[in-house]
Amino acid sequence: MPSLPLKNDRFIRALFRKPVDCTPVWMMRQAGRYLPEYRKVREQAGDFMSLCKNPELACEVTLQPLRRYEFDAAILFSDILTIPDAMGLGLYFTPGEGPRFEHPITSKADIDKLSIPDPLHDIAYVPDAVTTIKRELNQSVPLIGFSGSPWTLATYMVEGGSSKTFSKIKGLLYEDPNTLHALLDKLAQSVIQYLNAQIHAGVDCVMLFDTWGGVLSTPAYAAFSLAYMEKIISGLDLNYEDRNIPTIVFTKNGGLWLEKIAAIGCTGVGLDWTIDIDIARARIGDKVALQGNMDPCVLYSSEESIRSEVKRILNSYGEGSGHVFNLGHGIHPEISPDHVACFVDAVHELSQH
Amino acid sequence: MPSLPLKNDRFIRALFRKPVDCTPVWMMRQAGRYLPEYRKVREQAGDFMSLCKNPELACEVTLQPLRRYEFDAAILFSDILTIPDAMGLGLYFTPGEGPRFEHPITSKADIDKLSIPDPLHDIAYVPDAVTTIKRELNQSVPLIGFSGSPWTLATYMVEGGSSKTFSKIKGLLYEDPNTLHALLDKLAQSVIQYLNAQIHAGVDCVMLFDTWGGVLSTPAYAAFSLAYMEKIISGLDLNYEDRNIPTIVFTKNGGLWLEKIAAIGCTGVGLDWTIDIDIARARIGDKVALQGNMDPCVLYSSEESIRSEVKRILNSYGEGSGHVFNLGHGIHPEISPDHVACFVDAVHELSQH
Repeated sequence: MPSLPLKNDRFIRALFRKPVDCTPVWMMRQAGRYLPEYRKVREQAGDFMSLCKNPELACEVTLQPLRRYEFDAAILFSDILTIPDAMGLGLYFTPGEGPRFEHPITSKADIDKLSIPDPLHDIAYVPDAVTTIKRELNQSVPLIGFSGSPWTLATYMVEGGSSKTFSKIKGLLYEDPNTLHALLDKLAQSVIQYLNAQIHAGVDCVMLFDTWGGVLSTPAYAAFSLAYMEKIISGLDLNYEDRNIPTIVFTKNGGLWLEKIAAIGCTGVGLDWTIDIDIARARIGDKVALQGNMDPCVLYSSEESIRSEVKRILNSYGEGSGHVFNLGHGIHPEISPDHVACFVDAVHELSQH
Repeated sequence: MPSLPLKNDRFIRALFRKPVDCTPVWMMRQAGRYLPEYRKVREQAGDFMSLCKNPELACEVTLQPLRRYEFDAAILFSDILTIPDAMGLGLYFTPGEGPRFEHPITSKADIDKLSIPDPLHDIAYVPDAVTTIKRELNQSVPLIGFSGSPWTLATYMVEGGSSKTFSKIKGLLYEDPNTLHALLDKLAQSVIQYLNAQIHAGVDCVMLFDTWGGVLSTPAYAAFSLAYMEKIISGLDLNYEDRNIPTIVFTKNGGLWLEKIAAIGCTGVGLDWTIDIDIARARIGDKVALQGNMDPCVLYSSEESIRSEVKRILNSYGEGSGHVFNLGHGIHPEISPDHVACFVDAVHELSQH
């Protein structure tokens, strides 16, 4: 069903580097614990995955930040580990330790046994949430769908959870690269189907979160993370129903590899705060849009400091479209909601074109 | 007292980019838990700081890896947090959580109260250990002294221990930069005196570990980490007793800033494994030596894989001196001592000039 045009398409226009009236802004984890209304729904839902798996509640928390702030995009409320959970690894969360798997991958046989989830059946709550959110948004702003990158998903699946050293998956990478490639290939196929289901359900943009690509050496990043993201981009239905759906690739700590990331066919590249956005623009800004890149910790400081840092980054990017303002990582749970208001308003006010 | 020449000066020669017969190698944390003989001494000493504070035992564990392997340098066994401990913050270690401080910095008043430790009085165990180790080494290989960078020390002092988000110190950085500068300035003065005491006691090289510089934005890194390392380098007695003492600066995740690091007057720049050493050499190798940069996780894999990765990095650096082989971070405790032997031998064998 062809949809009505978006009422606010600043985010989409900036990604395609078309003129905008001011710089669009959204925040990674904008639906999250810094909002009291989120914490209330989260409590009601029980645990985190129950919230993700309930399309009505996922819709509610997706919309919450848009009621408070003039964000130029909504992002599907979900987790990056829905695919391995659907593969049967048994995702659960422990307070303070983050995500864990009951059945981590420990052998080649474990990988051979994995089947590619059917998103409409095994992860139906995600396309259902997309449909619900799109209906409620009523074309006010675009909706971003997303997935974890194959490498990032694989780190959790092999380590069994978060890791500081990534010793298990890197041991596998150096010792038996073919086995790791078999896992990454299944994950890439799964991500393609998963993101296409989100596209078919109505998302206006898709983003790949490569949270842990930055822990790899340069050749390992190219072979074990970037190659699979490239495969995904080329497998997506980006012209579904004659729409033109932009893609964003974000590798945290990927500043050394921007040229390589910009070359895989994505529309925009996400930047963390360690790279200067003017340098990033000089390196790749003629090929892609840039998304970022304020240190989330700036939001701990005064409104004056927040405005000053927003201004510095806007000036650093410079004239012309092609910039989606964002934090360089998800917002921290302790941030004051008032500081977020200051941040969003500063981006819009200080970037009037 | 002028000392006899070093029997093996490959490490020093490579730092000054003078010809060497093969590439020198040592390992960050080479005196550490992967060695059973270390674990025995550690048990005997009680807790970790009791080991650091006992010059005879610190000497013993410093020498242990040199008895097993053909390392081209020894590194003083100590902790990076000796200075804040001597300032009265009460360093202690909790299993699995790393270093903690009983009295973290929580106000400007806390910073005003800090006094600069006299290394010969308040941290005497460190120069004492240096004297002891130098005597026992008997000029066989050079001894590296070290300190944490002011920014890295400050992160632990303000956060109270390790951190994932660095929210407290970055809140301070953005909200009240002058107060943070006051702390960093005291730390820089302390590090100068501390490293000079190590130089006077006999170390042949000094290294600054900037473990957490890489969590900063580019302008914040320049102002809050690099500027203080530059101040330290220019305050060191590098020509003490007519010796010519090289310096190494290592910012983990500092690959974006190599040109800036190479310009602060250091002899060598440490590289983690995320940057290709050929690219690093093209960017700064005409100004400084390079130290690094194998992913420590390679040591989990087979001897064949270890040799192949050593070869790749040696070839990537290319012909000529100026390379000190090392890991891109400290060795992990679970690594097999046999794999370390394979690693050290591979560097020497595969780099015959």
